Amino acid sequence: MTMTVPEAIERGRTLTVPALRQTVARLHPRLRHVVEYHRGWVDADGNPQPGGGGKLVRPALALLSAEAAGAPAEVGLPAAVAVELVHDFSLLHDDLMDGDTERRHRPTAWTVFGADGAILAGDALLGLATQVLLEVEGEPGRKAAVILGAGVQDLVRGQAEDLLFESRSDVTVAETLHMEDGKTGALLACAASLGAVLAGAPKEVVDGLAEFGSRLGTAFQLIDDLLGIWGDPAVTGKPVLSDLQSRKKSVPVVVALEAGGPDAEELRAFLVSEGDRPTEDLERIAALVERAGGRDWTTAEADRQLKTAGAVLRSLSLPPLAEAELLALARFVTERDC
Amino acid sequence: MTMTVPEAIERGRTLTVPALRQTVARLHPRLRHVVEYHRGWVDADGNPQPGGGGKLVRPALALLSAEAAGAPAEVGLPAAVAVELVHDFSLLHDDLMDGDTERRHRPTAWTVFGADGAILAGDALLGLATQVLLEVEGEPGRKAAVILGAGVQDLVRGQAEDLLFESRSDVTVAETLHMEDGKTGALLACAASLGAVLAGAPKEVVDGLAEFGSRLGTAFQLIDDLLGIWGDPAVTGKPVLSDLQSRKKSVPVVVALEAGGPDAEELRAFLVSEGDRPTEDLERIAALVERAGGRDWTTAEADRQLKTAGAVLRSLSLPPLAEAELLALARFVTERDC
Repeated sequence: MTMTVPEAIERGRTLTVPALRQTVARLHPRLRHVVEYHRGWVDADGNPQPGGGGKLVRPALALLSAEAAGAPAEVGLPAAVAVELVHDFSLLHDDLMDGDTERRHRPTAWTVFGADGAILAGDALLGLATQVLLEVEGEPGRKAAVILGAGVQDLVRGQAEDLLFESRSDVTVAETLHMEDGKTGALLACAASLGAVLAGAPKEVVDGLAEFGSRLGTAFQLIDDLLGIWGDPAVTGKPVLSDLQSRKKSVPVVVALEAGGPDAEELRAFLVSEGDRPTEDLERIAALVERAGGRDWTTAEADRQLKTAGAVLRSLSLPPLAEAELLALARFVTERDC
Repeated sequence: MTMTVPEAIERGRTLTVPALRQTVARLHPRLRHVVEYHRGWVDADGNPQPGGGGKLVRPALALLSAEAAGAPAEVGLPAAVAVELVHDFSLLHDDLMDGDTERRHRPTAWTVFGADGAILAGDALLGLATQVLLEVEGEPGRKAAVILGAGVQDLVRGQAEDLLFESRSDVTVAETLHMEDGKTGALLACAASLGAVLAGAPKEVVDGLAEFGSRLGTAFQLIDDLLGIWGDPAVTGKPVLSDLQSRKKSVPVVVALEAGGPDAEELRAFLVSEGDRPTEDLERIAALVERAGGRDWTTAEADRQLKTAGAVLRSLSLPPLAEAELLALARFVTERDC
């Protein structure tokens, strides 16, 4: 009786894409072009492109969130659109700030439309996301916009910390987890709870769903950290050992640093070094991080976060079908080889 | 009986600055530092600085807006804070996009904290502005956030057009006025109307005050365009003939282009030329723009916009003191030598 997850995702796409397209069409033509290019709907010249737009995990979660509160999925649609717009806003600005030139095998928006285009399109999307929620009349729309606003502050805080940590050599595991909770957990918490907010769910359900989303987001990010070192490039689409090549202070690396000893010293020296390293050097560092417990600790922590997410969800006494779909979605987004 | 304008401005500062400081203190310490530096409250190392923070014209307008609706000025305080935060968001992002290295005789924020710092601090302020309005319970807060959201879209649209017009040789006067209405009029329309929204004013008063603010903003921008060519550097704080040196397609220039003939051809050739020009070249171009009617037309249009602003305001039957203060504020922000 349970929908398989690809169906929940597929249903999410079917409902969300037309609404998302309509909302993006409200932007100034120039900014609309930037956003439609970024989403893979059009090419750099504005010609329509087949496919594109990603899995829309956050919108799928927002629709399930409305159902978890006993409402039809459609009630969560403004939340589905809003969280995806915020996700796009943050990708547009982050790609520019991180200097990333490729996303989903295409040149990033700022490389095509300039820094101006990416900054302004992101600004417009951030404003538009709140507008979409406030167009839901009355208290639920207002409450949803307040929660999204707090989520955006957390998201921006996470990105600020990520950039600051690059120049620090004493970042702790706790600080890194808190940063990742902002960068990934905050918006997934919004996605998992805003549908229920629009459905008028009681506070304990909204808070529980937000906690589920936040834990799921942290688990997702921890697995991403694992894949950034030990993932198969054929699966991740990223170069082998990419997070080590970019000297990223991801959780496995920081765990190894905190473990101390000569391995930590070598790792620290590597992190402040510059220039591309051959694969054998990076493999040596990966082995070092693994020996220091970085891989095991991160795997266990991702598992712990996922288990907590599930336990929180089950404690809410949601409609069984919605609960099963949310758990299946959680498995789907975290079951990646690593 | 009427407060003199410096008093209205002074009262605005006294009420707004503490609330603004409290709100900015909610940001992540790094982003807070960027914003406090940008506002002139602290230096690049975070040490408190005397003065700073500008005239706070928009907050003064928001407080008068509440009084125009028969409420105490304090009712407009969240609107005063919100419009100033949006103003700061747009300055932080615009200075970066325009490559401006100086503002109020200090290095701009992005030159001190990097593009990252300016982008993230702007993002955080944009989110925070809406949050401040939504913290006003009930329908007035929600309505104010909706209006501010529409204003932000207009502001971003204006900035996008401004950047696009740089590479176009066929921009019309109507397009330029519409662009300036977005860049300057939209936020002044919010400032002039949001205090009344929070005071629960009827739609016709809110709309009338917004129209007043929009006209005032356009007049202000037209005068800025005049000062950018014919202003006294000692008064404007900008280099002589600065808008011509930067090839800015301001209204007087576009009026001269639209007039056609050999003067327009020479002007067009100048606008696509590159490199700094000596003052005598720029003076020749300024004379050409004036001969083609650019100066007279812009002066008359600024005057017309201001008169319309005043007429709209007087049609609203506001409390006489509030009306007088709003008119005095309009004179204060537009009475600059040009």
